[in-house]
Amino acid sequence: MKNELQWGGRFNAAPDEALLRFGSSLNDDLVLAPFDVICSRAHVVALRNGTIIDEATADALDTALAHVAKEIAEGDFTSWAETTDCEDVHGAIDRRVRDYAPAAGDRLHSGRSRNDQVATTLLLYVADRAREAETIASRIVQHLVATAERELAAKTMLAATTHWQPAQPILLAFWLAAGAEGFLRVVRRFHRVAEDAIRFCPLGSGAVSGSTLPLARREAAAYLGFTAPSRVALDAIGNRDVACDLMHAVARALIEASRISEEIVIWATPAFGYVRLDDAASTGSSLMPQKRNPDPFELVRSSAAGAIGALTAALGTLSGLALSYHRDLQETKAHIISGTERGLAALRAFAQALPYIDFQRERMSTHAAQGYTVATDVADALIGAGLPARAAHEAVGTRVAIAEQEGRDLNASDITAIADATTCTIHGAPLDAAASIAAKRTIGSTAPEHVAKALASIRVELASLESPCNHESETTD
Amino acid sequence: MKNELQWGGRFNAAPDEALLRFGSSLNDDLVLAPFDVICSRAHVVALRNGTIIDEATADALDTALAHVAKEIAEGDFTSWAETTDCEDVHGAIDRRVRDYAPAAGDRLHSGRSRNDQVATTLLLYVADRAREAETIASRIVQHLVATAERELAAKTMLAATTHWQPAQPILLAFWLAAGAEGFLRVVRRFHRVAEDAIRFCPLGSGAVSGSTLPLARREAAAYLGFTAPSRVALDAIGNRDVACDLMHAVARALIEASRISEEIVIWATPAFGYVRLDDAASTGSSLMPQKRNPDPFELVRSSAAGAIGALTAALGTLSGLALSYHRDLQETKAHIISGTERGLAALRAFAQALPYIDFQRERMSTHAAQGYTVATDVADALIGAGLPARAAHEAVGTRVAIAEQEGRDLNASDITAIADATTCTIHGAPLDAAASIAAKRTIGSTAPEHVAKALASIRVELASLESPCNHESETTD
Amino acid sequence: MKNELQWGGRFNAAPDEALLRFGSSLNDDLVLAPFDVICSRAHVVALRNGTIIDEATADALDTALAHVAKEIAEGDFTSWAETTDCEDVHGAIDRRVRDYAPAAGDRLHSGRSRNDQVATTLLLYVADRAREAETIASRIVQHLVATAERELAAKTMLAATTHWQPAQPILLAFWLAAGAEGFLRVVRRFHRVAEDAIRFCPLGSGAVSGSTLPLARREAAAYLGFTAPSRVALDAIGNRDVACDLMHAVARALIEASRISEEIVIWATPAFGYVRLDDAASTGSSLMPQKRNPDPFELVRSSAAGAIGALTAALGTLSGLALSYHRDLQETKAHIISGTERGLAALRAFAQALPYIDFQRERMSTHAAQGYTVATDVADALIGAGLPARAAHEAVGTRVAIAEQEGRDLNASDITAIADATTCTIHGAPLDAAASIAAKRTIGSTAPEHVAKALASIRVELASLESPCNHESETTD
Amino acid sequence: MKNELQWGGRFNAAPDEALLRFGSSLNDDLVLAPFDVICSRAHVVALRNGTIIDEATADALDTALAHVAKEIAEGDFTSWAETTDCEDVHGAIDRRVRDYAPAAGDRLHSGRSRNDQVATTLLLYVADRAREAETIASRIVQHLVATAERELAAKTMLAATTHWQPAQPILLAFWLAAGAEGFLRVVRRFHRVAEDAIRFCPLGSGAVSGSTLPLARREAAAYLGFTAPSRVALDAIGNRDVACDLMHAVARALIEASRISEEIVIWATPAFGYVRLDDAASTGSSLMPQKRNPDPFELVRSSAAGAIGALTAALGTLSGLALSYHRDLQETKAHIISGTERGLAALRAFAQALPYIDFQRERMSTHAAQGYTVATDVADALIGAGLPARAAHEAVGTRVAIAEQEGRDLNASDITAIADATTCTIHGAPLDAAASIAAKRTIGSTAPEHVAKALASIRVELASLESPCNHESETTD
Repeated sequence: MKNELQWGGRFNAAPDEALLRFGSSLNDDLVLAPFDVICSRAHVVALRNGTIIDEATADALDTALAHVAKEIAEGDFTSWAETTDCEDVHGAIDRRVRDYAPAAGDRLHSGRSRNDQVATTLLLYVADRAREAETIASRIVQHLVATAERELAAKTMLAATTHWQPAQPILLAFWLAAGAEGFLRVVRRFHRVAEDAIRFCPLGSGAVSGSTLPLARREAAAYLGFTAPSRVALDAIGNRDVACDLMHAVARALIEASRISEEIVIWATPAFGYVRLDDAASTGSSLMPQKRNPDPFELVRSSAAGAIGALTAALGTLSGLALSYHRDLQETKAHIISGTERGLAALRAFAQALPYIDFQRERMSTHAAQGYTVATDVADALIGAGLPARAAHEAVGTRVAIAEQEGRDLNASDITAIADATTCTIHGAPLDAAASIAAKRTIGSTAPEHVAKALASIRVELASLESPCNHESETTD
Repeated sequence: MKNELQWGGRFNAAPDEALLRFGSSLNDDLVLAPFDVICSRAHVVALRNGTIIDEATADALDTALAHVAKEIAEGDFTSWAETTDCEDVHGAIDRRVRDYAPAAGDRLHSGRSRNDQVATTLLLYVADRAREAETIASRIVQHLVATAERELAAKTMLAATTHWQPAQPILLAFWLAAGAEGFLRVVRRFHRVAEDAIRFCPLGSGAVSGSTLPLARREAAAYLGFTAPSRVALDAIGNRDVACDLMHAVARALIEASRISEEIVIWATPAFGYVRLDDAASTGSSLMPQKRNPDPFELVRSSAAGAIGALTAALGTLSGLALSYHRDLQETKAHIISGTERGLAALRAFAQALPYIDFQRERMSTHAAQGYTVATDVADALIGAGLPARAAHEAVGTRVAIAEQEGRDLNASDITAIADATTCTIHGAPLDAAASIAAKRTIGSTAPEHVAKALASIRVELASLESPCNHESETTD
Repeated sequence: MKNELQWGGRFNAAPDEALLRFGSSLNDDLVLAPFDVICSRAHVVALRNGTIIDEATADALDTALAHVAKEIAEGDFTSWAETTDCEDVHGAIDRRVRDYAPAAGDRLHSGRSRNDQVATTLLLYVADRAREAETIASRIVQHLVATAERELAAKTMLAATTHWQPAQPILLAFWLAAGAEGFLRVVRRFHRVAEDAIRFCPLGSGAVSGSTLPLARREAAAYLGFTAPSRVALDAIGNRDVACDLMHAVARALIEASRISEEIVIWATPAFGYVRLDDAASTGSSLMPQKRNPDPFELVRSSAAGAIGALTAALGTLSGLALSYHRDLQETKAHIISGTERGLAALRAFAQALPYIDFQRERMSTHAAQGYTVATDVADALIGAGLPARAAHEAVGTRVAIAEQEGRDLNASDITAIADATTCTIHGAPLDAAASIAAKRTIGSTAPEHVAKALASIRVELASLESPCNHESETTD
Repeated sequence: MKNELQWGGRFNAAPDEALLRFGSSLNDDLVLAPFDVICSRAHVVALRNGTIIDEATADALDTALAHVAKEIAEGDFTSWAETTDCEDVHGAIDRRVRDYAPAAGDRLHSGRSRNDQVATTLLLYVADRAREAETIASRIVQHLVATAERELAAKTMLAATTHWQPAQPILLAFWLAAGAEGFLRVVRRFHRVAEDAIRFCPLGSGAVSGSTLPLARREAAAYLGFTAPSRVALDAIGNRDVACDLMHAVARALIEASRISEEIVIWATPAFGYVRLDDAASTGSSLMPQKRNPDPFELVRSSAAGAIGALTAALGTLSGLALSYHRDLQETKAHIISGTERGLAALRAFAQALPYIDFQRERMSTHAAQGYTVATDVADALIGAGLPARAAHEAVGTRVAIAEQEGRDLNASDITAIADATTCTIHGAPLDAAASIAAKRTIGSTAPEHVAKALASIRVELASLESPCNHESETTD
């Protein structure tokens, strides 16, 4: 065992086996394997261009690393690594390289520390996952917008609620557009993380202070797609900022998804009956033969709490940790990887489940005007006729109370009574949902033309984010 | 696939494969396997005693379950389960039972829901882990007390700090006793969780409302070691309270360990040099040949944040979730299991690493009187001589400032100067650490006789908690 | 300013005003004022009985403290304190005592540190709030049980849901009993915190190591109602364990309340219409005249997240903090006090709002059998007739699918069809809700007699917790 | 009371006083007062330009609002508001406006809901605080860079640690540059929040669906400095995304500050003695006359946990909340405001305290080469001479073990021994700290010329962020 560890020249006693197992992060970081290989190949670039190793050694290392990359892609590496006692994925890859290129392998770690290696590998992982997350979120925006366009054409209506109480009639397309707006912000958040991840490359920072070897840092950074090598080694090896940004973005994406999921879960109850989930996205019960449960949306709803917990864990690990590398950072890494993998699975599932929602147009539209949802429009009509807002609100509220006691909706008699009480002439107070929706005059309102404009604008903004030339970054070097 | 799910009679379409995979918790809950088997055997007891199944079926089920238990103990079950597409450990065991007892197996789920099964299995897991955690924490208390007794005999001293600044001389035994006090509270917390876990047995609660089958709930509960069957099925299947109590207790245990670990990490710096870690508990660096890093204590320090994150996740999942079972509870389970397994590993490692600490008695003792740590004793002597506390504090502070400017410790000339300035006769103001420690007169102080009493009292309290007849519970039935 | 600080003899430069203001916790801890006064009076007991101060001084201090206590009770102290530049409530009370008893006042701090003073004061606060919380939670249990008894008599039924989908018919009393079970655990949790809070009294622990003055710690502890003086000063002044236990208990209480609140919010929608909130507990909208919003339950629902956040903050502050006192503990205190005050306000509001819920018995009962909620009973009847569980489940599920397609509930024709398909004779498969409920045979089920037993048992357990002689504690000294 | 509420026409019973008090957020949101007034003036713009109110009314409203703004600025408003029973700051300002302009005041709420009003006011607050936070963070970067330049000139050295164990010699300027890098990311994060906050203006979104009144939304948005009116009312009134972004950015800023603070706290111990805090930034003890405590840095260290808790609370409140407005959002607002105010106070204090740090150059520099910190350089020299990395590491580690046993640093004899053992010629292996530092050859290393370049680059990047024309936003309309 002693020989296999990458350190040990100074140590007499063998490590305590139990503590060594405890210290191992192999189960937590195996997912980093492909990124470590790329990082190691970049280090070969740095060594080769710095003429620290000769061409033959460099070629041997690169060939061995390509071989390991293949093993990883084919799934063989993981099962092999799990049989070893390597303390982490980086150690496992190092060992595998030495299996394939024994002599050259002993030179791979020249001028490299585990610290800059881990920091770089993690950034590559973060960039990859941020890009994937951006893609999933974009797909969700596109689905919501496309569905909104369809439902706009179908004129499906809905009683918007606030406090879950009927508020005002809206278009279902309007609700879908609201979801799209939220996910557009999610797209932007992941976009920024992906950009920030490849700004500064830590590779070549050594353990903490740089290296006395002439490592070709610029070439290595370029090989990996980074804008520039990092500027301060001590910062580069000990900050986990972009990784935390990713975890935060994941949590926020899932909060967004959880909000829509809660609404779908409640809408799927027979009491509401606004949506029906396809069999393919529902599950049954092991005891109750009649059940049709909206499990994917329940799991997505709860996934937000998991991501918040992972964020809390990662941020808590960093708090009060002196600058530089501490072993505590291994835990930060574990929380972020586990939280991200779990979170992206939920985000993917959300994107997968959305198309299985079958909106019950008729039921939704029928409900849209129930619950006195047009009361605000009547009050607005009074205001338009010159009544102060407070008086208008009071006058309509009084009639709602009466109608409620009589167990009916607002009707023409109420309009008359309000007109009498306020000595106002009421024009165009809509008493049905469609009229209420059509009467909206403000930008961003639920009126069909405004919803159409919003959807178009969202499409434009999404396209601008997806454009490869749209970079927010203003790096310096 | 359709046939293999335990529900499906009502469904036409096959489930979406991706969503099914997403919904699977097999990776999260395989650790529950032994507990599910015991729970299932208890259900056989309930069915048999309720004469719902005949003896032959009951025997066949029990034999098959015993067989599965053996597979689990030998590790074969896990590798088999991972090859299946079962949605959770409960489904996997159900399928395995039917492999071994096809006809009888179809009757195992009679009158049982996944809901009461999961709730019961989780409580058995919680009770098991709480007991183990209590044992580990007890071991830590015992180690700290035994070490304290050793260092009390050796009269090792230490400059106690507040704000990390030297405060007053204490015995190292006193510091160890403080750690023991903290872990004694940890023991008590786990003790209560272990007791609460086996109070009310959910098995036989059905999905939510109980069963029309005459399940023998008392017998099943007794088989599992519970005090009584649960009283309200709807609560029993949907609350995760004891599991959250366990997660909380784990977090608190690790916070306690993190506090001691931080101190050890700093004491292990050459600047302090108060402790030296054995090679067996230290790790080196892949780049820097001279490093001796206190990794186990760094990982334990950071483990607290992970446990807090898991607690946050579990509690967040439950917040605002209507009573009864929701799929969100699957996530709660995952967070608690993962947080507990990870947390107990850290707690075990902490217990394992403590004995590798080699206290540097001489250096510690030498430092004990440095930094004007006896100043409070001098002020107390003035108060004892009749001076008001504020005046005493001011008089000593003035001399400390002078001594500090002159780059020396307090000495006899300062005592004289203070006596002159305050016109007080100062008796017995200790100017060295040992005298300061010996001069303490209060219960709970660092004076050797008080430390000895505290250690004895801690031993007594620990023994009383460990006694099998010491139950806090006042259950009713 | 320099003179007013309780330290300063050693300092030359005045403190930075901005940093001093930043360091002040007066806004955070003024709520501790009554507890600091009691604590200070106990210290007078310790000084008097230790003959450290003479009787006249002790009397003068006690009289001054009684005067301050009166000011606090009458609200004058707070407004006075806010005009001072005191750094915390302890400093403000110290200054006020010196206003009333200048000479004696300078002796109050003899042998006392801010550290033991803060720790003791905080425990007194924790004990007080834990007792109040226990009382509120008890009141909630009593209300839920009493309401359950009323609704049991009224035979109000409900469609229990799992995954928010109709599951099985239950009694409303059963749902209320589930809520009572949850809050009974809340009562127990607060009960333990209240007991633990007064186990060990820190007063007399000094800054970190005890005192050379012969403080009468036992008498002071007894004066405050503690079981014993603390055993290890270093632990006593630096642990915040019971305070964290309180914060945890508050969070858990609010999670319980949030779960019921979510259900009430959804039940209050017109779609469900299961409950109607009295005007007194509803709020309207500033824009929409018709609104009747269940605000108290929304705020209670969200209060759980706030309490989890406060718990996270408090635990995070402690993580990795070396033993002993650090200024970080001031933040811990602030989070726990703020989180507790806010949390108890929400708990009180929940208790206050519950009686305003008007259950809509008829609508609830009508819904109870809709959604094929009796399907499980039919399957159980098949199992009772000898069919394996899996086959029974499949047979019933098939008929549910047919009934659903035909837009109707299960009826006698389905029973016949199932009997034919399975060649089973089905006895007593209930097709209406009341029959389904009555058919339940297990302990803890929704059958009326079992609900009645559960309610009686809950009442007994609550009474046993409230009994003054029921102490869980097993302290040693 | 009934009349004073802005809703009530439909209600018969008076609200429960206790619940009304519970529902009040006045204590939480008074800090929003100036922003509500600006928002209300913008609504007058919308009403006036939409010709919904006449010019005289608009003028009267604007004058009244200006008057209230003055009261707020002068501090009179808060004391007045606290005497009212208003439910929040918005209600209080509404009432105050009606005091000054009774007739016009009743028209202020025309076409406005509390929902769009709160959302807009909160964004204005967020923009203001994000800008202030960006300024503070910029000041911190500037201070760190300027101090680094000074210490670079002074050639102050430091033993960089990893795991708190001596690692390699670095310049103090390098450590300061690492801190500057971290805070530069903080600046960028606040910069983005400030930009995002004023992207889309919610005002004019009504309660949830827009308005039938022709509100001039573009003009109102422009008046407030927003880029455009929001596109989807339902999203605009119910998302708290930018406010959460601010809370996240605050937490991250404090984590950065906590890391530096931890290091300062430890460096301020006599054992390290690397820094001495000025009296102005230190505090004493009420018991121990000699204490000099680094309280500001302890409080900043712990402030990170508080901000994480506030973030957890805010995100938890939003999780699983259906789209649209729910009263739960009031709690979100409270957590974000309280967390931000508290967090910015800590950030300001950190900026204020940094200049009081007096680096002990000689002691730091002396320590820089202790602890075998040059071992890596020796190993690198071997690698440069052609030895494989693993062999080099082993060879040096062996000599470190010997030197450690002999209680001495590495010296020329070790170099000779290593050369012999490895048969390598070692050139330029530095044995002292300054040589080690100078020998570094990589970009981003601690070599003086690289540190100088890094500092210059940081200055450039900071300036580019501060430039008014540097906008990251790509809004659409």
